[in-house]
Amino acid sequence: MKRRIMLVVAYDGTGYKGWQIQPEAVTIEGVLNKELSRLLKEDIHVIGASRTDSGVHAEGAVCVFDTEAFIPADKFSFALNQSLPADIRVLRSREVPPEFHPRREKCLKTYRYSIWNDTFELPTKRLYTYWLHGSLDADRMRTAAELLVGEHDFKSFSKDKPQMPESTVRRITSAEVLREGHQVDIYITGNGFLYNMVRIIAGTLIEVGQGKRDVSDIERIILARDRNQAGQTAPAKGLCLMGYSYEALMTD
Amino acid sequence: MKRRIMLVVAYDGTGYKGWQIQPEAVTIEGVLNKELSRLLKEDIHVIGASRTDSGVHAEGAVCVFDTEAFIPADKFSFALNQSLPADIRVLRSREVPPEFHPRREKCLKTYRYSIWNDTFELPTKRLYTYWLHGSLDADRMRTAAELLVGEHDFKSFSKDKPQMPESTVRRITSAEVLREGHQVDIYITGNGFLYNMVRIIAGTLIEVGQGKRDVSDIERIILARDRNQAGQTAPAKGLCLMGYSYEALMTD
Repeated sequence: MKRRIMLVVAYDGTGYKGWQIQPEAVTIEGVLNKELSRLLKEDIHVIGASRTDSGVHAEGAVCVFDTEAFIPADKFSFALNQSLPADIRVLRSREVPPEFHPRREKCLKTYRYSIWNDTFELPTKRLYTYWLHGSLDADRMRTAAELLVGEHDFKSFSKDKPQMPESTVRRITSAEVLREGHQVDIYITGNGFLYNMVRIIAGTLIEVGQGKRDVSDIERIILARDRNQAGQTAPAKGLCLMGYSYEALMTD
Repeated sequence: MKRRIMLVVAYDGTGYKGWQIQPEAVTIEGVLNKELSRLLKEDIHVIGASRTDSGVHAEGAVCVFDTEAFIPADKFSFALNQSLPADIRVLRSREVPPEFHPRREKCLKTYRYSIWNDTFELPTKRLYTYWLHGSLDADRMRTAAELLVGEHDFKSFSKDKPQMPESTVRRITSAEVLREGHQVDIYITGNGFLYNMVRIIAGTLIEVGQGKRDVSDIERIILARDRNQAGQTAPAKGLCLMGYSYEALMTD
C-alpha cells in the first residue's frame, strides 16, 4: 500500500538553479527525485509546496511523495541524508494523509530576507545576505512593513509574467524588520506569495530604509497595481524560505 | 617616507590553507602580499598579528605593512577590496606608529567557536559551524568555561609541537557560552593563545556539555599540564578570529 510522505527540506541554494526540475540544470527537485528513486528503488517524483528561484535558500521547504517502501515515516530523513550532498538536508519526514497536497492545502508560509549593512561585505555572510553599504534605517523599514500586513492586491509587488494568477490578492499576516548589529532581517508571513513578491517587497523596504522613498509610498504602491511603482527586486541570495504551517496538520 | 599601515581583515577560511604564506598553497597572507604588491607597485610583505589554521575564519584578523604610497591610510581598504576575492575583505585600514608590531604589542584577542546543535546539519550554516547532534547542555558548558577565566598554565590545552613556547601560561579574561536556538557560540578573550588552544577548549567544553565529563574536570585538566587530559580538538570550520584590542591604540 502506498503512503504519502512529507519532507521538510533545507538547502543552500548557492549551487542550484532553483527548486524546479530542469533537464539541463542541477536543481533541488532533481536531486531529491534522483536520491529518493535510488534509495527506494521506485520512480519517485516529489510534489513541492512551492518553487524557489535560482540561488534562493531554504530552512523549511516542503514536498511530498508516494511510496510503497516499508521504512518508518520519520526515518526517511536519516536515510536520505546519508546520500544527499551536504548543501541539501531533509530536516524531518512524516506521513501525511494520501489526499494531502502541499500546494492546495491552506497554510501560512514564512520567508526571511537578510541584509548585511556595513561599509564592506563580510566574507562569512556573503553567501546568505545581500550586502548594502550606506545608511539603512531599520525603524523606517519596520513602519513601512507594517503597512503591508492585511489582505491586499499585491500586483505591484509581483513580476509580470505571461501566466499571471487569476487573483493577485494575498494576505500577509506579519511583516517584521529586525536589526542586530550590521544584519537586518525581514520576516514575512502570509497565506501565499506572488512571483518574486518577497524580493520586490524587500527591495522596496530597502529603498524606504535608504530614504529614497517615503514610508507612505507603500499604500500608494499597493493601490497602483503596477510593478513599476514598487522598488527593485532584491538579489536571490538574501532570501530564505523558512517554513510552512498547514492548517490540516495543526492537530499533531 | 615610509608609513606603517594596519589592516583589519575578514575572511571565509573555507578555501584557504590558513593564514601563513606557503609556496604551494593559497593562503590569506599570500593573497594579501600579492594584491598589495600589485596595488602599490612595491614588494609588500605583511606582518600578521597571528596565524590561523587551514579552514579557520576571521572577522577581525590584523596585519601591518610599510609603504611609501601616497594613498590616505583609511583608503587602503577601499582600494584593496576592488581586487581581493569575495572571500577576503579589508574592513578597515589606518596608520599606526612605525614601531608598532602586531605580535609584540600588548593586546586582548577574541575568538568565537560556533556549534550547530540539531539532529541534522543545516546547509546554510554548514561552512561556519561544527554540527553536533544529540544533547548539548550549554549551561554546563558555561559553568565549565568560567573555570578557564584567569591566569593559568594552559599546556593541557595546547597541541604538542617541536617548538613549544617558553611559557604556556596565558590569561583568559572572559569565556562565555551563548545558546540561541540550535546555535551555541563560545566566545573566549585572552592575552594570548597557544597552538590549537581555542579548538581544544571548545572540544573539551563540548564533552562537558554532552555529559561525557564533569564540569570540575576543567580544574583537573589545567593542573595536569598534559594534552591527553583535555578533550578533542574541535574542527577548524567552527572557529572565527573575531578581533584584537591593542593597548597602544586605545587612546584613539
